[in-house]
Amino acid sequence: MTLPLRVGIAGLGTVGAGLVRILTEESAVFAARSGRPIAISAVSARDAGKARGFKLPGRFEPNPVALADAEDVDVVVELMGGEGDPAYALVKRALQRGKAVVTANKALLSRHGMELARLAEDARVPLNFEAAVAGGIPIIKAIREALVANRVQRLYGILNGTCNFILTEMTKSGRAFGDVLKEAQARGYAEADPAFDVGGLDAAHKLSLLAALAFGTEIDLPGIHVEGIETVSSEDIQFADELGYRIKLLGIARATDHGIEQRVHPTMVPSESAVARIEGVTNAVMIEAAPVGNLAFEGPGAGAGATASAVAADIADIARGSFNLPFIVPTGRLKGRQSAPIARHMGMSYVRLRVRDKAGVMAAITAILAKHEVSIESLLQHGRAPGEAVSIVMTMHECPEATMRAALAEIGALESVLALPNFIRIESFS
Amino acid sequence: MTLPLRVGIAGLGTVGAGLVRILTEESAVFAARSGRPIAISAVSARDAGKARGFKLPGRFEPNPVALADAEDVDVVVELMGGEGDPAYALVKRALQRGKAVVTANKALLSRHGMELARLAEDARVPLNFEAAVAGGIPIIKAIREALVANRVQRLYGILNGTCNFILTEMTKSGRAFGDVLKEAQARGYAEADPAFDVGGLDAAHKLSLLAALAFGTEIDLPGIHVEGIETVSSEDIQFADELGYRIKLLGIARATDHGIEQRVHPTMVPSESAVARIEGVTNAVMIEAAPVGNLAFEGPGAGAGATASAVAADIADIARGSFNLPFIVPTGRLKGRQSAPIARHMGMSYVRLRVRDKAGVMAAITAILAKHEVSIESLLQHGRAPGEAVSIVMTMHECPEATMRAALAEIGALESVLALPNFIRIESFS
Repeated sequence: MTLPLRVGIAGLGTVGAGLVRILTEESAVFAARSGRPIAISAVSARDAGKARGFKLPGRFEPNPVALADAEDVDVVVELMGGEGDPAYALVKRALQRGKAVVTANKALLSRHGMELARLAEDARVPLNFEAAVAGGIPIIKAIREALVANRVQRLYGILNGTCNFILTEMTKSGRAFGDVLKEAQARGYAEADPAFDVGGLDAAHKLSLLAALAFGTEIDLPGIHVEGIETVSSEDIQFADELGYRIKLLGIARATDHGIEQRVHPTMVPSESAVARIEGVTNAVMIEAAPVGNLAFEGPGAGAGATASAVAADIADIARGSFNLPFIVPTGRLKGRQSAPIARHMGMSYVRLRVRDKAGVMAAITAILAKHEVSIESLLQHGRAPGEAVSIVMTMHECPEATMRAALAEIGALESVLALPNFIRIESFS
Repeated sequence: MTLPLRVGIAGLGTVGAGLVRILTEESAVFAARSGRPIAISAVSARDAGKARGFKLPGRFEPNPVALADAEDVDVVVELMGGEGDPAYALVKRALQRGKAVVTANKALLSRHGMELARLAEDARVPLNFEAAVAGGIPIIKAIREALVANRVQRLYGILNGTCNFILTEMTKSGRAFGDVLKEAQARGYAEADPAFDVGGLDAAHKLSLLAALAFGTEIDLPGIHVEGIETVSSEDIQFADELGYRIKLLGIARATDHGIEQRVHPTMVPSESAVARIEGVTNAVMIEAAPVGNLAFEGPGAGAGATASAVAADIADIARGSFNLPFIVPTGRLKGRQSAPIARHMGMSYVRLRVRDKAGVMAAITAILAKHEVSIESLLQHGRAPGEAVSIVMTMHECPEATMRAALAEIGALESVLALPNFIRIESFS
């Protein structure tokens, strides 16, 4: 057998520890399958002495960035996270020194991915990031390699397990958002500061990478329209159920006449659709492409085992000498940012209104919709309370988002409408 | 750019034609993504002059096996099908000549896969067969590369679209097997001689390849227990529905204490399980592995576009210089055949009996089950017809298949039992 591939790991948190376990406990199997032994030559972490349940598997390097220069490191594995230094400095320097890099860091790539891809390309070394999106689901490999003969039309998925857990629990139990969020935090599914997850930014980071791969465009995080799930009420979930929908936080990227539409927002999906059925912390990515047709990938989006499995596969690809450009084609051949503005989005939608239950309210609302040529598909009202506040919901046939927004602004200004309309996009699947 | 990779295609049926379209109509995109132009230098088919909607893209070679020796062919793409010659002769000779091979031929690999893998290994050339299993779903790549750090515990799936179409239609419409089979034939989903599909052998071919990859064992087609869907009646489907199950033809491979269990048979799966929801000609593969967890892959299992997409990806991998051993580890390191006998299978089951409705029948049946220590989970009878024939169904708690079979033999011999019991295995998912 050939010389071992020497790995330097920066970050020994949950995922780093999971990776160490794979590379040490399963080393013979892993070497046989990778065609080459893998050795952990160096590790870096905040605290060398912390109890981790295993002996440090290589020499300890206090400065993670020094792994980039280490003579005994062939592949740098970055598992520290964070879009800035030291992760950025480490990955950049490693690529500049011609070392292969494996990273699980979507925030870093979403921000600096184009620059880092260019460095990898110049040095002809791999920059692998399977674990950065959808944990244990091999979606990067699928798009990079398996779908290379396809044109992607739409890609969508559940990219944040925390949000999906919260929405699933709200749906099952009827509980409110804040209540379920607390449970998610207690279970370790949500961070103490949950804004990054529930606000949709984590999903947007992942979507930016998938969209660049799928559509051959530069990463365009600012071009993604992002809404979180904080505004989804248990009332919305109940109405959705009555209308035959589930509410999911989806990341969606789609080729349109106005560019690549990229959006992350609470979405109503038909209850019988595959994506509606994905529950709890599970992730899913669905791809519609030609000539292959529709594909679906489902699996754990986070956790030590799932993420470490993806990192280890990236390392094995390097051990086997497999080389891919990070974004399939040279960065110079990627199309520029061409995100379609959300105002041009065409789609169905759901609107919930709080109105005073009195004669003429519905007439005023429907007149505004008619003026904007927005066509109502269905209308629901629960109970009657003359003179009191009631909720009504409507679903609208497909229309441009700008039109819908203009109509909603007028409706929201009506005296009998008591709060700003709550608006949720409906995604249809053929 | 480097010199083109020169492809010789044997077989210009549906898939071959789909591949030609990808390689000619999308050649610039495909070259950019593969890092190298791909040229079709030669093709072979039964009839050079047949109308195919495109001009022959390379020189015509009347003898397919001659592609193995052709100076202008770097990669042989075998799309003729059939486990024997000329497919076998072509693939064997191409590998012996040190040419990379891409094939969609599960029958060939299921029979000769070990010998062909050894030849590929000796020559250090790729033998890629993504299109041989589950059409457009990149399941071979997932197991070969993405799950390389995992131990698979169970793998199961819907591997034959014809059977799934028939069972789906029987479920939706209540129609009988023969009636729906005719529709499948009219739609082009089923062959004129459907035995290969509905008898389960096509699914068994695919399962044999997935099991070898997932468990690191030699291909063992004879070790697969195969039952087809011909014996599934609309009555079974209706009872299944009442009991909360769907009937699917599953291919299942599982690590047990007695070896690798490999089986293809009609299976009752909980209605709310992911695999129950796969309808029509769609395929699905589910994998339970550690440390990654549970993954699901769904997509089109056949058709020109899906299959050609998989073949093209295999060619692109070769263009990029990616090299994998066909079965991940060298053939000499694969574990020998170690299929667990079906008699050792432990599982729940469903039994339908035709009995004469008279006093004492149930007592006799339950006494036999009690003697064998088989425990009834539920029991259903539709209607009453004293002295006449009625159907009763029972589901049984988990027990060894040998025990169940012995009990059923005794039950079948009872005078009041009018036909051999119909037995369907129930698969449980955590």
